[in-house]
Amino acid sequence: MKVKVIRKEHFNAAHRLFNPSWDEEKNFAVFGKCSYPNYHGHNYELEVSLVGDPDPQTGYVYDLKLLSDLIDEHIIKVFDHKNLNLDTPYFKNLNPTAENIAIIIWRILRQHIDNQYELKIKLYETERNFVEYPAH
Amino acid sequence: MKVKVIRKEHFNAAHRLFNPSWDEEKNFAVFGKCSYPNYHGHNYELEVSLVGDPDPQTGYVYDLKLLSDLIDEHIIKVFDHKNLNLDTPYFKNLNPTAENIAIIIWRILRQHIDNQYELKIKLYETERNFVEYPAH
Amino acid sequence: MKVKVIRKEHFNAAHRLFNPSWDEEKNFAVFGKCSYPNYHGHNYELEVSLVGDPDPQTGYVYDLKLLSDLIDEHIIKVFDHKNLNLDTPYFKNLNPTAENIAIIIWRILRQHIDNQYELKIKLYETERNFVEYPAH
Amino acid sequence: MKVKVIRKEHFNAAHRLFNPSWDEEKNFAVFGKCSYPNYHGHNYELEVSLVGDPDPQTGYVYDLKLLSDLIDEHIIKVFDHKNLNLDTPYFKNLNPTAENIAIIIWRILRQHIDNQYELKIKLYETERNFVEYPAH
Amino acid sequence: MKVKVIRKEHFNAAHRLFNPSWDEEKNFAVFGKCSYPNYHGHNYELEVSLVGDPDPQTGYVYDLKLLSDLIDEHIIKVFDHKNLNLDTPYFKNLNPTAENIAIIIWRILRQHIDNQYELKIKLYETERNFVEYPAH
Amino acid sequence: MKVKVIRKEHFNAAHRLFNPSWDEEKNFAVFGKCSYPNYHGHNYELEVSLVGDPDPQTGYVYDLKLLSDLIDEHIIKVFDHKNLNLDTPYFKNLNPTAENIAIIIWRILRQHIDNQYELKIKLYETERNFVEYPAH
Repeated sequence: MKVKVIRKEHFNAAHRLFNPSWDEEKNFAVFGKCSYPNYHGHNYELEVSLVGDPDPQTGYVYDLKLLSDLIDEHIIKVFDHKNLNLDTPYFKNLNPTAENIAIIIWRILRQHIDNQYELKIKLYETERNFVEYPAH
Repeated sequence: MKVKVIRKEHFNAAHRLFNPSWDEEKNFAVFGKCSYPNYHGHNYELEVSLVGDPDPQTGYVYDLKLLSDLIDEHIIKVFDHKNLNLDTPYFKNLNPTAENIAIIIWRILRQHIDNQYELKIKLYETERNFVEYPAH
Repeated sequence: MKVKVIRKEHFNAAHRLFNPSWDEEKNFAVFGKCSYPNYHGHNYELEVSLVGDPDPQTGYVYDLKLLSDLIDEHIIKVFDHKNLNLDTPYFKNLNPTAENIAIIIWRILRQHIDNQYELKIKLYETERNFVEYPAH
Repeated sequence: MKVKVIRKEHFNAAHRLFNPSWDEEKNFAVFGKCSYPNYHGHNYELEVSLVGDPDPQTGYVYDLKLLSDLIDEHIIKVFDHKNLNLDTPYFKNLNPTAENIAIIIWRILRQHIDNQYELKIKLYETERNFVEYPAH
Repeated sequence: MKVKVIRKEHFNAAHRLFNPSWDEEKNFAVFGKCSYPNYHGHNYELEVSLVGDPDPQTGYVYDLKLLSDLIDEHIIKVFDHKNLNLDTPYFKNLNPTAENIAIIIWRILRQHIDNQYELKIKLYETERNFVEYPAH
Repeated sequence: MKVKVIRKEHFNAAHRLFNPSWDEEKNFAVFGKCSYPNYHGHNYELEVSLVGDPDPQTGYVYDLKLLSDLIDEHIIKVFDHKNLNLDTPYFKNLNPTAENIAIIIWRILRQHIDNQYELKIKLYETERNFVEYPAH
């Protein structure tokens, strides 16, 4: 049986939910306050989990210090204290919902973590709204 | 791969654990302090999760504001500041354990959420006792 | 300069806010859902703090295990899994608001803790509603 | 002895720390990532406390439902999902640090709460950075 | 569909990560500060979950008071306020990583809980580092 | 009126409570499990607060990034992943209770923070046991 290991990190960012093919009125009807034009923001809490077998030499599935460094280099440095819509390349044509941010983070990290490890993202936009990708 | 979205709500309620086919002594032997006749209560924390595909127009699996409204109308209005045994129709012949409350909440919400979305309930009775339904 | 030490405990109880000199309508106007006749309940989180000088032999202001035992004997055993209105002697003629519960807990514990220690109570009714007594 | 009652609310907002009399370089030297031009944001947690005597008729120092409504009308409606620098009148010439936001919230609420009640603000910008006003 | 029930407990322990077949230098290169010779420690938070069907007589999948007692007898009494490397029989030849502690706890509890119940361990070493066993 | 600013940090350490002028039996009678000879440990959460006036140029009472760096250099580097009794100079002749650790941290930081700022330490040994120094 395999073990799952989880590392939790955070970043603070601004964003706005907005579909550019709709007018302001429709955007407000669908996204409410999240569509306000001058952005709002969140303290995002990010949990990254990996599944694998503990290494018999170390007892680690994956060194969580190394995982933390990977998240820092590829996610925190890119997203923290940024405007997700304007300052990152990922949300020029993609709405920065929690769902889409989690998918993007998964795609970025997947390139840097060996495929022997299952990878999963849990992202808290607030204490009461959060998402997981993939769901299973 | 699908995404899971979760909305967390809460309600405060009184309850008592009690099997009416047993006498007080056996109820106390099985349920301990939870069987005290005049009720006690909890701050229940409720997490409702849905699994689906993000809509390409919105980036939402499900509008969590809409999910919050559904929970409010069908669960919070019915359970909040109520005596679960006396004031709700669900626990006249069913013991209001966390397990049974979670199953009831699932059954109520299942009627109002399209079957394309997997639905799951996580219910905290206290920070140290909580349940999930369905388990998988 | 003195040190403050704090011990956190919890109890689960039912209560109802109600002024018997008013009719149901006025009680509902003032206390809203908290006045529902069949009670609701809370997971109360209780912080008890004492101020004093560390003992040079132990480094303790007060043994928190001993404080925990005192709280258990005089508060938890009396309030936990009880109906505050019906099952305790304190709220027969006193509304069990968080304010009044905190004052009662202070008065009970004050009898069991030497007056050389300042005593203060912080009581969480929910994560979002809480009180302190005395205020200063 | 008086009782303190506390109500906790939250809002999500974008902001940027910036002194317009300095150039970008000096702003970055002083404010670091907080000075990035396109804003970032936070889930602000706000605790509002009042000190007073419990009313003998109600057992309340202050109805926390009423306090919640006041905070909602005068603070949350103005700050939530807004850009504090651009969308509110308060930070046109005042840097929206946690310190200054807390002072502004205190000044707004002070006008709506009778002076018999001491008023205090605690504002969490993140779980690890927070402020209180007034300090004593 | 089955229900999962979860009980959360905690223990405080010292440990050191160390592979005795390596020298100090290699241990420090792999385990960093966790390899310091005189031990450090953690407040471990332990979640034990069981999956089964609610009993029609009680509404319980498993009496969480009984589960708490089992955890107390077989885990807390053995691990709490102990040095995991020196004071327990489990980590004489096994590195006490969170992964290995979770596996050991699972093996101990599996002997005391009927196999009709799926058993799972979640162990928090810190708020930011935690593991689950089995992963699925 | 002045503002209080707070920065929260953490460290993980081992310790043992023990009075060397007493025998093992008396140490166990007074300190219980905390006196076990091979040490146990905690995730210490440390809140450092400063009181002062916001600087009109920055809106800061004190740059919390700078405060975090000071705590890191003088406290975290010295205490984190250490055995408080064996690896630090402070507890050779002083019992490392939460009270004494808080006093030591205050004394260390007081040397590095201008006296115009009131300084206060809050230290969580566990979620349920914590201390403040000075108390007022």
